[in-house]
Amino acid sequence: MSGQNLIYLDNNATTKVDGRVLEKMLPYLKEEYANPSSMYDFSKKSSNAIKESRAIIRDFVNAKDEKEIIFTSCGSESANTAIRGVLNFNKSKKHIITTKVEHPCVLNLYKALEKQGYRVDYIGVNSNGELNLDELEEAVSEDTALVSVMWANNETGVINPIKKVSEIIKTKNPETKLFVDAVQVAGKIPIDVQENGIDLLGISGHKFHAPKGIGALYVNSKTMITPLIIGGHQERGKRAGTENTPYIVAMGEAAKLAQDGLEYELTEVKRLRDKLEKNIINKIYNARLNTGGANRVPNTTNIGFEYIEGELILLHLSDIGICASSGSACTSGSLEPSHVLRAMNVPFTAIHGSIRWSLSRFTTEKEIDYVIEKLPQIIEKVTSISPYQKELQSLKDLRNMKQS
Amino acid sequence: MSGQNLIYLDNNATTKVDGRVLEKMLPYLKEEYANPSSMYDFSKKSSNAIKESRAIIRDFVNAKDEKEIIFTSCGSESANTAIRGVLNFNKSKKHIITTKVEHPCVLNLYKALEKQGYRVDYIGVNSNGELNLDELEEAVSEDTALVSVMWANNETGVINPIKKVSEIIKTKNPETKLFVDAVQVAGKIPIDVQENGIDLLGISGHKFHAPKGIGALYVNSKTMITPLIIGGHQERGKRAGTENTPYIVAMGEAAKLAQDGLEYELTEVKRLRDKLEKNIINKIYNARLNTGGANRVPNTTNIGFEYIEGELILLHLSDIGICASSGSACTSGSLEPSHVLRAMNVPFTAIHGSIRWSLSRFTTEKEIDYVIEKLPQIIEKVTSISPYQKELQSLKDLRNMKQS
Repeated sequence: MSGQNLIYLDNNATTKVDGRVLEKMLPYLKEEYANPSSMYDFSKKSSNAIKESRAIIRDFVNAKDEKEIIFTSCGSESANTAIRGVLNFNKSKKHIITTKVEHPCVLNLYKALEKQGYRVDYIGVNSNGELNLDELEEAVSEDTALVSVMWANNETGVINPIKKVSEIIKTKNPETKLFVDAVQVAGKIPIDVQENGIDLLGISGHKFHAPKGIGALYVNSKTMITPLIIGGHQERGKRAGTENTPYIVAMGEAAKLAQDGLEYELTEVKRLRDKLEKNIINKIYNARLNTGGANRVPNTTNIGFEYIEGELILLHLSDIGICASSGSACTSGSLEPSHVLRAMNVPFTAIHGSIRWSLSRFTTEKEIDYVIEKLPQIIEKVTSISPYQKELQSLKDLRNMKQS
Repeated sequence: MSGQNLIYLDNNATTKVDGRVLEKMLPYLKEEYANPSSMYDFSKKSSNAIKESRAIIRDFVNAKDEKEIIFTSCGSESANTAIRGVLNFNKSKKHIITTKVEHPCVLNLYKALEKQGYRVDYIGVNSNGELNLDELEEAVSEDTALVSVMWANNETGVINPIKKVSEIIKTKNPETKLFVDAVQVAGKIPIDVQENGIDLLGISGHKFHAPKGIGALYVNSKTMITPLIIGGHQERGKRAGTENTPYIVAMGEAAKLAQDGLEYELTEVKRLRDKLEKNIINKIYNARLNTGGANRVPNTTNIGFEYIEGELILLHLSDIGICASSGSACTSGSLEPSHVLRAMNVPFTAIHGSIRWSLSRFTTEKEIDYVIEKLPQIIEKVTSISPYQKELQSLKDLRNMKQS
């Protein structure tokens, strides 16, 4: 099955490379193959293209200076560089704060740091997935080196109030650094590192229609880090390795398109997401919106189907060419229910049957209509073999009562 | 100036992406954009393509098992993962051995490790650039955690006797791990990690006609490392980050072509390199082969032009569309003479005027003939403004004497 015939509603896992992005990068996979660090004329077009891309990313996150932008190979590298870079630069402070709902990659890194002697506090969320800011305030101390909070959650789309987070931290300890994993907001809502008081911020190209294998890290000029990949002078000594010119150019173009497309994202993509969400909730009696009234990115909805198995729903969807997911791709294959939904205390009746739907600017109304048409039959089929028939009947009765 | 009209003799800095490699990767930049870790059918083609590529790289280096291959984002990441991975896994041993002529990226990493309390011995080379094996043997001790030796030098092409190096190390301390930076041999000579007793080996795709931004690391199944980029389950937990499917596929294809092309490399590319070298040495009285009779990769020659400045030669070459270099691209811009040539004790009269010429399978006889035709005029021009006219005259006289 190829991407051309699919209804792809898993854009929080990865996105299709935009044709305009591919076109822009192709010359650097063909005739413009110079090493951008070389001295001859041939390399100038490549080094200029990287410079241009860096300026676009600077504007995309509203950094003050393009020197604050480091190109990396992915979101995970950005997070590792930021987190370990801050901790290794000043080894005297051993306390870190993060959230219970961070991306599994970031959580795994913190587990590794705990083994190295760091103390990590994991801040909780309420039943809508909203961060407990009182708990955060309580946790910040003299010894807190770093707070890392994702801007929006990959599974629920719930947006954290980063400006408030920054104010809370900096009021209690101005020296504590704030790293924001912005992978799931890039291209979905505006990013402004200055307005939001962010010290370090990571993004990943493949979440906004650049290829997989390119990321960027914003590091405020006042924030010092030890590099993760040590070696050559590239990226001002903060990230060694011959520059990946094609993908750097691609991410620049993708960021430009994402910036231009924000309005569309916040209106049209949101309209389609809302249409999908409302129709599922209205048509399927055992469907439940897992995020209540929380503020979310415009493309994501996380819906629980009570008393049934999510993996089985996904299998049926895949059979008719619809791609969605039950959690992050990084943890797929695991049958453990999502750590995010667990942190939200999603009832056990719904947690196993929760599906993430994530749209993009390429999602069409026709596709959404098709999902709205086909999903009820699939859910009915899966529900019919559930061992919880009595509970399902009660749920149905309750819903009918409410509607009458 | 674009790559199409150039005579590109800087293939040790980077190479042109082979058209067949580009063709093979393009579907993964277009319709096959699935996250390879996702569960639906759509991702199968991507995950299978990665599997296939991993098997090709396994065969390319003759690893026992494809589980021993980790995809990375570049040679620098491979080296950082290998070196720091071994050291961090077993922190009790604090002694490292490397060579004076390693790539500057690796040397910078060792300088950083020295600051962290590691003791590093740098093994010297003779005037041909050949490693001092007695010095190596002397240096290995009970406390030696790691030896890292490049397979071939990027500036001179001189090949190190890796099998002997491994035997020397393992005889004195079987627990010492050997990391081989094979970036400059991949596609030039056969690689066999088992035959040569290698524990860890790094390669970089863009040195053999894959794009910049992809590398691989071989880690023997008996060698444990701590990952550099911690996070998701990708690469069996040894390297987090969504897989760069297009470039992974590209490197697989490039490795296959490189393997198939070894014979051509060792005969035809070598013939052209030898032709270039002999003609320069014969036609230009102040030219000097910097590597004597050392065993070298077939594509590289490093020639010193006495009493003149290399940067000036390169400028004139660039003006007529010929790309060569005076050292690694990673250190370009620096006016310091090459650390490699200094380690070889290349006389000060030749060290500043040394040029690296590195060919590829795309180099044509016509191109080599053009360089042979044009270079003498350039050298004459540059020589005519040298302040060392007296010394140059003596050199000319000496050469004439030898030839008569």
